[in-house]
Amino acid sequence: MRELDVIRAIGGLLPAAPEEVLVPVGDDCAVVRFGEAVWVAAADMLVEGHHFLPGRTSPEDVGYKAVAVNVSDVAAMGGVPRFVLCSGGAPEAEAVLRCFRGVVEACAAFGVYPLGGDTTRAGALTVDVAILGEVPGGEPVLRSGAVPGDLLAVTGELGTAAAGLLALQRGEGGFGRLVRRHLRPEPRVREGLEAALLGVHAMIDLSDGLATDAGHLCERSGVGCRIDLLRLPVAGDVRRLAGEDAEVLAATGGEDYELLISAPEQTLQELARRISVPLTVVGEVVEGGEVSFHRGGEPVEGLAGWDHFRA
Amino acid sequence: MRELDVIRAIGGLLPAAPEEVLVPVGDDCAVVRFGEAVWVAAADMLVEGHHFLPGRTSPEDVGYKAVAVNVSDVAAMGGVPRFVLCSGGAPEAEAVLRCFRGVVEACAAFGVYPLGGDTTRAGALTVDVAILGEVPGGEPVLRSGAVPGDLLAVTGELGTAAAGLLALQRGEGGFGRLVRRHLRPEPRVREGLEAALLGVHAMIDLSDGLATDAGHLCERSGVGCRIDLLRLPVAGDVRRLAGEDAEVLAATGGEDYELLISAPEQTLQELARRISVPLTVVGEVVEGGEVSFHRGGEPVEGLAGWDHFRA
Repeated sequence: MRELDVIRAIGGLLPAAPEEVLVPVGDDCAVVRFGEAVWVAAADMLVEGHHFLPGRTSPEDVGYKAVAVNVSDVAAMGGVPRFVLCSGGAPEAEAVLRCFRGVVEACAAFGVYPLGGDTTRAGALTVDVAILGEVPGGEPVLRSGAVPGDLLAVTGELGTAAAGLLALQRGEGGFGRLVRRHLRPEPRVREGLEAALLGVHAMIDLSDGLATDAGHLCERSGVGCRIDLLRLPVAGDVRRLAGEDAEVLAATGGEDYELLISAPEQTLQELARRISVPLTVVGEVVEGGEVSFHRGGEPVEGLAGWDHFRA
Repeated sequence: MRELDVIRAIGGLLPAAPEEVLVPVGDDCAVVRFGEAVWVAAADMLVEGHHFLPGRTSPEDVGYKAVAVNVSDVAAMGGVPRFVLCSGGAPEAEAVLRCFRGVVEACAAFGVYPLGGDTTRAGALTVDVAILGEVPGGEPVLRSGAVPGDLLAVTGELGTAAAGLLALQRGEGGFGRLVRRHLRPEPRVREGLEAALLGVHAMIDLSDGLATDAGHLCERSGVGCRIDLLRLPVAGDVRRLAGEDAEVLAATGGEDYELLISAPEQTLQELARRISVPLTVVGEVVEGGEVSFHRGGEPVEGLAGWDHFRA
């Protein structure tokens, strides 16, 4: 049984949503109305040995990242992150405290307030963050709005976090920027907010890798897409580390926490003017349900993402 | 370092709360204003081998309990539980799915809607639930309002869950009711709501055991209390299992998830009329900061609760 099968099976158990729930589980966040305001909510759990390397990742980094990846989910809805609840467990109380230091540091960095949580003993360092964000315009961007004719664009750069993980695993020095991007993601809150205000059609954050996440977006939208590996924004140090594999790493490596946005060309041009990180068109939305990759026209097969229960 | 030290140290890291946060971390829930409405929020994490017995607790029970204990935190504020976010991890995907079945079952039982969450692989079954509840009257009951002259009362019965755990550990048959109360707590939502509407002074749910939780309530209120072991509501089957230790079990055993309420005598009398579970006066609030136990007037020393990092 794979992670998506578990998630699908869980989805089948859910009761009908109450009327305040505008979008139930299945997008980057659920969407819920509190009075006049529209809020989004999500949670992500990180576990030592599965989501990060024991001994090479500090508890502070783990706590920081747990908040950052949740902030990224809010960003992908066009929301502003506001509150988190955080639970942490570890074999030693000191590790839990260090993890919470990272949580609080990330909260300060992203303007989020920690409402509460839990601490416990656990066999491995484990942290779960639940987040609440507000959608200022009241119109969150879903995964499901992509239509044929849209272009697909990504913020920032791809493959950076995967390259950082590779450098950490190999113990290779000189790639501090990449390692830092792996340990301390930079969720695209301002960019997501601008995208929402411009009415982009669909958006998702790149946690599992472009190949997998483009699949999620296309599945929810009932469309397919064509992505050109040669157009992926890959930085020089990623190319230096990964060599010929750099584009594949950029297409499949997880945890970049950039945004993948589907919108008409003009909207993307306007968005690019409003944000400070690069926005790069990497492909187009097409009819059908297939996510296909090509390299300057030549088809490329076999790109796939990350599954927690398969890995 | 003990759990309370960790929690205190984390508390020292927190920034100033934004103005919507009416009560920050430190009570059963944080209290936050969303528009016109007052909401409460909390989270609790359960980890196999620390919070439940591997092999003798089904993943469904673990999921159910994770929701129930959070519902209890909302009940202790006088809130109505509304939404949860739930993250679960286990070595096998099937165990995660079974855990989520328990989560969904509990959500149905308590009228809560699961907004989302996360699934992952982990070395041990782990589940974290974050909960949001609404406070209908807008006035949550805090731990901090107890004043000398109040009486202390508990809902339901004490020592039942600890006795159930004991029966499970010993493998003793014939105590199905106790085991069930250990595995599937019955949070006192209606009772907490009535207590809030009647304006009781202070309230806390009994997760760590009466001795410890009375200490939390007294510390936050700046008072002490005197509790009579002979007045504790202990059921016949608990006495049969625990023998002479029954009252000590009732005073120190965790996870009953009953409510401890501090209020004037008249208020408690009115509350007792409005609820269907028994309400039992077990002691009184006094000046000073000490939690003392006696047995019909004779002092009893050395009663203390549960610490996740000490156990």
